[in-house]
Amino acid sequence: MKKIAIVMGSESDLPVVEKAFQTLDSFGAPYEVHVMSAHRTPQDVREWTCGARAAGIGVIIAAAGMAAHLAGAIAASTTLPVIGIPIQSNDLGGLDALLSTVMMPSGIPVATVAVNGAKNAAILALQILALEDAELAKKLEGQREKDAEAVRKKDKDIASKYNH
Amino acid sequence: MKKIAIVMGSESDLPVVEKAFQTLDSFGAPYEVHVMSAHRTPQDVREWTCGARAAGIGVIIAAAGMAAHLAGAIAASTTLPVIGIPIQSNDLGGLDALLSTVMMPSGIPVATVAVNGAKNAAILALQILALEDAELAKKLEGQREKDAEAVRKKDKDIASKYNH
Amino acid sequence: MKKIAIVMGSESDLPVVEKAFQTLDSFGAPYEVHVMSAHRTPQDVREWTCGARAAGIGVIIAAAGMAAHLAGAIAASTTLPVIGIPIQSNDLGGLDALLSTVMMPSGIPVATVAVNGAKNAAILALQILALEDAELAKKLEGQREKDAEAVRKKDKDIASKYNH
Amino acid sequence: MKKIAIVMGSESDLPVVEKAFQTLDSFGAPYEVHVMSAHRTPQDVREWTCGARAAGIGVIIAAAGMAAHLAGAIAASTTLPVIGIPIQSNDLGGLDALLSTVMMPSGIPVATVAVNGAKNAAILALQILALEDAELAKKLEGQREKDAEAVRKKDKDIASKYNH
Amino acid sequence: MKKIAIVMGSESDLPVVEKAFQTLDSFGAPYEVHVMSAHRTPQDVREWTCGARAAGIGVIIAAAGMAAHLAGAIAASTTLPVIGIPIQSNDLGGLDALLSTVMMPSGIPVATVAVNGAKNAAILALQILALEDAELAKKLEGQREKDAEAVRKKDKDIASKYNH
Amino acid sequence: MKKIAIVMGSESDLPVVEKAFQTLDSFGAPYEVHVMSAHRTPQDVREWTCGARAAGIGVIIAAAGMAAHLAGAIAASTTLPVIGIPIQSNDLGGLDALLSTVMMPSGIPVATVAVNGAKNAAILALQILALEDAELAKKLEGQREKDAEAVRKKDKDIASKYNH
Amino acid sequence: MKKIAIVMGSESDLPVVEKAFQTLDSFGAPYEVHVMSAHRTPQDVREWTCGARAAGIGVIIAAAGMAAHLAGAIAASTTLPVIGIPIQSNDLGGLDALLSTVMMPSGIPVATVAVNGAKNAAILALQILALEDAELAKKLEGQREKDAEAVRKKDKDIASKYNH
Amino acid sequence: MKKIAIVMGSESDLPVVEKAFQTLDSFGAPYEVHVMSAHRTPQDVREWTCGARAAGIGVIIAAAGMAAHLAGAIAASTTLPVIGIPIQSNDLGGLDALLSTVMMPSGIPVATVAVNGAKNAAILALQILALEDAELAKKLEGQREKDAEAVRKKDKDIASKYNH
Repeated sequence: MKKIAIVMGSESDLPVVEKAFQTLDSFGAPYEVHVMSAHRTPQDVREWTCGARAAGIGVIIAAAGMAAHLAGAIAASTTLPVIGIPIQSNDLGGLDALLSTVMMPSGIPVATVAVNGAKNAAILALQILALEDAELAKKLEGQREKDAEAVRKKDKDIASKYNH
Repeated sequence: MKKIAIVMGSESDLPVVEKAFQTLDSFGAPYEVHVMSAHRTPQDVREWTCGARAAGIGVIIAAAGMAAHLAGAIAASTTLPVIGIPIQSNDLGGLDALLSTVMMPSGIPVATVAVNGAKNAAILALQILALEDAELAKKLEGQREKDAEAVRKKDKDIASKYNH
Repeated sequence: MKKIAIVMGSESDLPVVEKAFQTLDSFGAPYEVHVMSAHRTPQDVREWTCGARAAGIGVIIAAAGMAAHLAGAIAASTTLPVIGIPIQSNDLGGLDALLSTVMMPSGIPVATVAVNGAKNAAILALQILALEDAELAKKLEGQREKDAEAVRKKDKDIASKYNH
Repeated sequence: MKKIAIVMGSESDLPVVEKAFQTLDSFGAPYEVHVMSAHRTPQDVREWTCGARAAGIGVIIAAAGMAAHLAGAIAASTTLPVIGIPIQSNDLGGLDALLSTVMMPSGIPVATVAVNGAKNAAILALQILALEDAELAKKLEGQREKDAEAVRKKDKDIASKYNH
Repeated sequence: MKKIAIVMGSESDLPVVEKAFQTLDSFGAPYEVHVMSAHRTPQDVREWTCGARAAGIGVIIAAAGMAAHLAGAIAASTTLPVIGIPIQSNDLGGLDALLSTVMMPSGIPVATVAVNGAKNAAILALQILALEDAELAKKLEGQREKDAEAVRKKDKDIASKYNH
Repeated sequence: MKKIAIVMGSESDLPVVEKAFQTLDSFGAPYEVHVMSAHRTPQDVREWTCGARAAGIGVIIAAAGMAAHLAGAIAASTTLPVIGIPIQSNDLGGLDALLSTVMMPSGIPVATVAVNGAKNAAILALQILALEDAELAKKLEGQREKDAEAVRKKDKDIASKYNH
Repeated sequence: MKKIAIVMGSESDLPVVEKAFQTLDSFGAPYEVHVMSAHRTPQDVREWTCGARAAGIGVIIAAAGMAAHLAGAIAASTTLPVIGIPIQSNDLGGLDALLSTVMMPSGIPVATVAVNGAKNAAILALQILALEDAELAKKLEGQREKDAEAVRKKDKDIASKYNH
Repeated sequence: MKKIAIVMGSESDLPVVEKAFQTLDSFGAPYEVHVMSAHRTPQDVREWTCGARAAGIGVIIAAAGMAAHLAGAIAASTTLPVIGIPIQSNDLGGLDALLSTVMMPSGIPVATVAVNGAKNAAILALQILALEDAELAKKLEGQREKDAEAVRKKDKDIASKYNH
């Protein structure tokens, strides 16, 4: 199975990004984690990204805030699918990071998830890898069913409390 | 090679979405096109989506405007990767469609590209399929190199015009 | 009297939505409560909604946050009036949920109230049912008069404190 | 059958609001049209609204732009359901009218539809009246089916053009 | 000297509005305070406003949040100058109240100050009354000079701390 | 009668600002017009403003776009009431000019009207001057009645066309 | 005198950026022009930027739209001052490019001018170079005076037309 | 070496602005600090600014919130480079200050940094002065390298914790 790489622009993104680790752990998916900055270590980003496919990476998740260029900078150096997590880091509600991540020019897409949507970034990465991994696809379906059951259980709890 | 499916919520999205067709054509990638509406034909969306993986679809691209629920509705019925194109259809600049597409709840990701970013949706779909298709990956790298050459040519043109 | 149904997309919406329960209780209106998700349990939403009119439901209130598709998904499966409550769940001020709820395409309206406006959703549902229920209409008028008196009392309190 | 009243704040709203007339005409629903202004003729608004229920009006649709107070002013004088259409009248994308219409304080709801959503306002009014009018409910279901068929036809057209 | 009237839409606006009282007190200006609601007590607003000029009121300050119609409703019933204070009451940053207050249609202006700008509303009211009150004009100039001196003092304090 | 001064930041604001001239002309109010820039001729703004009260000016209207500092710069140099017209000059919908004009710090208010609201700026200026000018107050009331009659006439026209 | 370099992300930015050329021409300042893309030719950007100081460049102006990373990418590879021009390229009013350009993380500033503010970018570059070039500083002062005279002339024209 | 001047519009901006002092201290750069207000002490701003170049100031940093006119007011009175720091002071996320600072009209640029970006304002000022100060340029490069090393250290720490 190809690895997933998770790159964050700053250590301060860790509390949000950790939800992606937990999701990947729960699926037993191999991943690696990096702190690299599109602005402070641009050549590290470049070099690491250029070698990613050869290193067995299948999908790259990039998390950054403010003028969030990390996902775009990675996407500029690889044709691997790149998933962007806009991180909220001020009182603009993450709109700065969202627009900086999603509004990419023609030719260089970034697959953007919700502001702070680290868990969904992990699931999206797994969905991509599951295209050629029937077992993983089955696990993803299983998780969906569990999520649905959890909603149904809450529905019953609330019905028993409020509906007479 | 798995097929790409492109679903648009309304025929009026066609002028934007056609750029995705052109990109896929230029790569010789197999695709199919649908008009289905999360609000007008929700069961059609549901039934088609549930059968998509079995029908050989690998990635689904969904384009919709305003309260753009199509990509999310499709994502709710499959664990295939779903790419959302927010379509601008009024003077809110596409912000309504962008937020409706990207701000998905935990568990059900939509890989969102830029407002009206149909070409990038197609490229992202190809990047996903190229994970297990070395030839396609090579073509994508080749296209990147062509795009870079085009920029370099413009740089020369402009340099010769303005720099003395 | 027809019943009002209140559906929330997640149990986490409960603290906001409970204000609707209180309002309906104070009018003695029959209602039922559900947790159903447009993304996690889309078929449950579909099936329940399709049976709602026959089950004696008159108005459906749907509360959801982020890319708030729940009200729209319900409205897609019934011609009963559907009231949408956009729930604020991040620092975008609820703008994501508001636009996702209100900007519905032609043919499938959602009657949207203010961000977190659960009480008003309940009152709007009662106003709709009061069209054929003179007693309920009278109670609504009575409540308006009480609300007006409460404002007048505050006016007097403040006048006596500040105006000399 | 109760009448629907459509009130616009300015004659300049007519090109948008006429889509509501067409929808109501196609359902054969009785309606009346007014130009009244929350700011220029506030007492006319007040007096007409106070008499609306007695005059056989069942639902009031109010359309206004900018600081769109008309729907709220009407809602303040009746407990009939009031539907608000925010009209776009400048380059703020209708956000001014949307927020002025939808963000009503507790106690006085306005059922807000999309910016310039006149057709949906009409359908919502019909859905409300159909609660006690089985024939109208059936017509609304029929229209939904026609809308769905129109989408399916477009799907076929596009499939025959693009899918081989 | 004409009186200033300060009307707030809800008692909850008091903590913001009190800054206006303090400013008027410091100038010894006569004022009266009211709680009246454009939506809960619209006729009280109407009647009070219509009598305001005759009652010796010179300027009316109105404070309201959300779909802030109070200033506009007052302005619709008088040709006295009306000053609007948009009150922030949710996480939209007061943008809803600002647009609802300032974007008035032609013919009915509201003199809008900053979100929560109660002190400036009071000063603006005093500036208006000072047009025919030379002593008040002089006091306003004096206050400006005091404000300027306070800035100059802080400049010195900071210079002595940081500049060597 | 005191004069009204209208200052615009750029000649390009003239098409919007001319509506203020027309309104003042229709009331026979004396006014003078200036082009002065907070950024290009700041000392001219300063000097003219400092002499305004002595020159018989009663109210100053300032119109500017983008980072619209003109009204604030004038307000900083006088205690006369200053009315700000935010001018829309790009595709931000005038939001830049609105926020730059209205969000003034404590002590220095600007009475802000709607984006491009030149007519309302003129009416607001007249309302201020009418405080001590009973004849002007009467004219303003007369204009309101005319505006109301115009709405009523349109209501009749539309009723005769659409209501049967 | 050090050279100014103007880099645009796409040839389509040329109509906006040309205003910078005209301004620099009018001051006789040496400059060079490039088309380079943070996403399509990231290594060209990197290599050119790293050599810029040695090549006699003093200030770099970078213009880009959408997720405008160009100025930030350049700033990441040099400690020369970098001026960013956010280019409007869709109906979001340039807000995407503005936030992507200005909201840079600590350590890597971009000196951002207004959306499409190419002329001001040129002037800012000249102001920076004028720090050590008294003649250029004088020219800049002269231009300011000319600009002020132009405003004063318009003031006279308008005064003679409107003021009697 | 020329001095850097840091001007804040209010003492309340100090907690943000102090980060600029720390940065300048760490480079041993001479600077002076002022509290001056574009609205409360406009003539002080004017006079100080006009004398700034002669006093040996090379770059002026101005910090202000809300309708943040300070940087623009300073820029109007000098051709020295002026750096603007938009200060967040309410729940609009600093968007008011950002637009008021960055959207300057042609001829009078303000080099705007991120909302609350005091550290970057200091670095930008140093980068400007470093154009003619090779030692300072070298220090700036050194700081960049230290920043990059810090990122690399965090990358190693996180890799050792999460990657196995």
